[in-house]
Amino acid sequence: MKEPLRIGVAGLGTVGASVIRILNTQASLIEEKTGRPVVVTAVSARDRSKDRGIDLSGYQWFDNAADMAASSDVDCIVELIGGADGMAYETIEKAIANGKHVVTANKALLAKHGLKLAAAAEKKDTALAFEASVAGGIPVIKILREGMSANRIKRIYGILNGTCNYILSRMENERMTFQDCLKDAQKLGYAEADPTFDVEGFDTAHKLALLSSLAFGTEVDADSIYVEGISSISPLDITMAGELGYRIKLLGVAEYGKNGLEQRVHPTMVPKTSAIAQVMGVTNAVTIDADAVKELTLIGPGAGGDATASAVVADLTDVAADAVPLPFGVSAASLIKATSAGMQLHQGGYYIRLMVHDRPGVAAGVATRMAEEEISLESILQKRPDSEQPSADRTGRSGTPVPLVLITYAAEESRIRSALARISADGLTAEEPQLIRIERE
Amino acid sequence: MKEPLRIGVAGLGTVGASVIRILNTQASLIEEKTGRPVVVTAVSARDRSKDRGIDLSGYQWFDNAADMAASSDVDCIVELIGGADGMAYETIEKAIANGKHVVTANKALLAKHGLKLAAAAEKKDTALAFEASVAGGIPVIKILREGMSANRIKRIYGILNGTCNYILSRMENERMTFQDCLKDAQKLGYAEADPTFDVEGFDTAHKLALLSSLAFGTEVDADSIYVEGISSISPLDITMAGELGYRIKLLGVAEYGKNGLEQRVHPTMVPKTSAIAQVMGVTNAVTIDADAVKELTLIGPGAGGDATASAVVADLTDVAADAVPLPFGVSAASLIKATSAGMQLHQGGYYIRLMVHDRPGVAAGVATRMAEEEISLESILQKRPDSEQPSADRTGRSGTPVPLVLITYAAEESRIRSALARISADGLTAEEPQLIRIERE
Repeated sequence: MKEPLRIGVAGLGTVGASVIRILNTQASLIEEKTGRPVVVTAVSARDRSKDRGIDLSGYQWFDNAADMAASSDVDCIVELIGGADGMAYETIEKAIANGKHVVTANKALLAKHGLKLAAAAEKKDTALAFEASVAGGIPVIKILREGMSANRIKRIYGILNGTCNYILSRMENERMTFQDCLKDAQKLGYAEADPTFDVEGFDTAHKLALLSSLAFGTEVDADSIYVEGISSISPLDITMAGELGYRIKLLGVAEYGKNGLEQRVHPTMVPKTSAIAQVMGVTNAVTIDADAVKELTLIGPGAGGDATASAVVADLTDVAADAVPLPFGVSAASLIKATSAGMQLHQGGYYIRLMVHDRPGVAAGVATRMAEEEISLESILQKRPDSEQPSADRTGRSGTPVPLVLITYAAEESRIRSALARISADGLTAEEPQLIRIERE
Repeated sequence: MKEPLRIGVAGLGTVGASVIRILNTQASLIEEKTGRPVVVTAVSARDRSKDRGIDLSGYQWFDNAADMAASSDVDCIVELIGGADGMAYETIEKAIANGKHVVTANKALLAKHGLKLAAAAEKKDTALAFEASVAGGIPVIKILREGMSANRIKRIYGILNGTCNYILSRMENERMTFQDCLKDAQKLGYAEADPTFDVEGFDTAHKLALLSSLAFGTEVDADSIYVEGISSISPLDITMAGELGYRIKLLGVAEYGKNGLEQRVHPTMVPKTSAIAQVMGVTNAVTIDADAVKELTLIGPGAGGDATASAVVADLTDVAADAVPLPFGVSAASLIKATSAGMQLHQGGYYIRLMVHDRPGVAAGVATRMAEEEISLESILQKRPDSEQPSADRTGRSGTPVPLVLITYAAEESRIRSALARISADGLTAEEPQLIRIERE
């Protein structure tokens, strides 16, 4: 029998506690699979006295995780501290420098330092594994890194943030506003006290940056991602989307096209009949479009202690089995520095909701401006949502602005923006237009 | 740079030709990933002269694949001959005996000889990889073998046969009969001239046997699988299912419970809102229910040259990277010989369609017999499908039998069977009852 793989767990929140528990309950299976026991020997966290529901007495305690990363009693560090820099970064860097394997769930850190750390890990021939950093329990990193070598990937997109999907699902099911859903999500522990990071799309962007790199063999480039969150989505948009056969999801989308690498995070209308539209609540999903497999969709838990720990333990099993692939599938040095395709060049369908003044000729005026930009309309819909009663005078006109919804065929974003600017200049609209991109399968 | 991995391809149908083409186009990526070129050096097929759209002149030709498996110019055999025995078996056995790696898409062979071949491969420390054998381009084998070590899997189920799913999708979308759809599927090349193997569920059973083994650590046991095909499904059942909020899919389902291992293949009603219900046409899907990840669903192409070749090439990439896991995730010797749970003990919901004589008291008589077996009914529906006009007399009765549909809560199959036998003995029904099991998420 081989020597045990000795694990040091840095960070003992829900995921850390789950990892320790699962490594105990699954010990014999993991040893059967790898021919080697995987045992926790050391732990580190901020507060030693806190009750975490697990017995830590058998493990060496470190007040400082970076010290643990240098310990000769540890072969592999599980980093669950969080944060793009600080102690998490110091711990990982030190672990690699000391020739130790690293398993982490830290997307923010990898989105920022992934390239540099991967290069360091390669040099030391240690693992830098991060299945848990994207889409929780969905093994999408393994699939991209090890299962797609036959494919040229064209596009990868997904629901990567459970908080946003939970909020959008409840807004639809219970006709609630964003703010009310957010408050409930916070009460239930699905959203942080400061929810900005989740609801404004930054968490999705970090995950997308990692998926992009793995899918296209490009350097991790989170800074170039176009990011738009869900706080502007109104119940009216959700109702309108439903009536038009769509559902609104916050997607991260990456495509490699003639303009370079397009990476974007924004609320997106997906056809109600698509697999991804069925993904409700905190569940995540990722779709890979590729030339050989065509379309592959993975649906599963995006967060939660056990689901995330499942990904960590899968990585640890690979490390124990000596299956240590290159962190990004190919060497960090061979990753391409991609040109970033600006959003102005984005081609796609659009849902545009204008709040127009309720008078004759407005729809015609709007349609004309769209035509001038050579934007073809799939549908144009002027109607009050079912729940609203018009207070119309005899001409059918009310005093308040009414929604006018346009669905366009594929058009360039710059043209859409320019048409909307003209419509606004024409004085046809009473509010800023709502614009939601459509993603087709 | 390491020595190239030299591949011998046995069987040059659509998949074989795709494998050769993809290994050429993806050569540099594969080498970047593994540090080792993967090159085809030899091929074997029945007919040397056939035009396959690829240039075979650079490869050594073998009339006999088993000879190729013994050649010193080959490190790894890709077996795409097909069939549970004969040349496919001989080739694989010889390859392993000669210390060569094997990659195969042959579910029938593995369902029959998988255990023995895995043991042989382990002894020789060679790969026996079979990602392509189940669900085509969906990397479910890799996930079960390498990604689930943190989990106790409770149930695995899926749409594993594209032909059946194509037929059921068309029956629903175009209100066609099974026979008409089958004929069309044959014309389009989605079904074989002799479709028995696909439509009667045997192909699904072979795949399920492999998934079960990987999921539960049990010996491959295809013979114990309960198998029922889709040829008995009528347009009426599809309509009724739709009205009740379900869709009919041919599922393979495996569960490990208190009665042992339950493996079954049968037409199944799944809630229309479930992810698996959205899977239409030749697409496949697999759902894994497990304690840590809860529910993981994978959707992708189940067949086709490129999709299947994608799985073969992924396996070859693992072999080249020296990532050669145990064929069934743990050693063949440690696989458990499971007790097979008989279908009589199956617990689940049922859709039962009776064709009853149209006279008073029939529904009551049926309901009484169900109650005697302590079967609770979720709904009972006596109605003509929308398309059929009743030819009723003044009492509301027609001469022809009418459908009476029952949906039960979870009940034991033996009780259902016994209630149906009594109902039939009571003379209430004019035809054999239709019974479709319901699978809930």
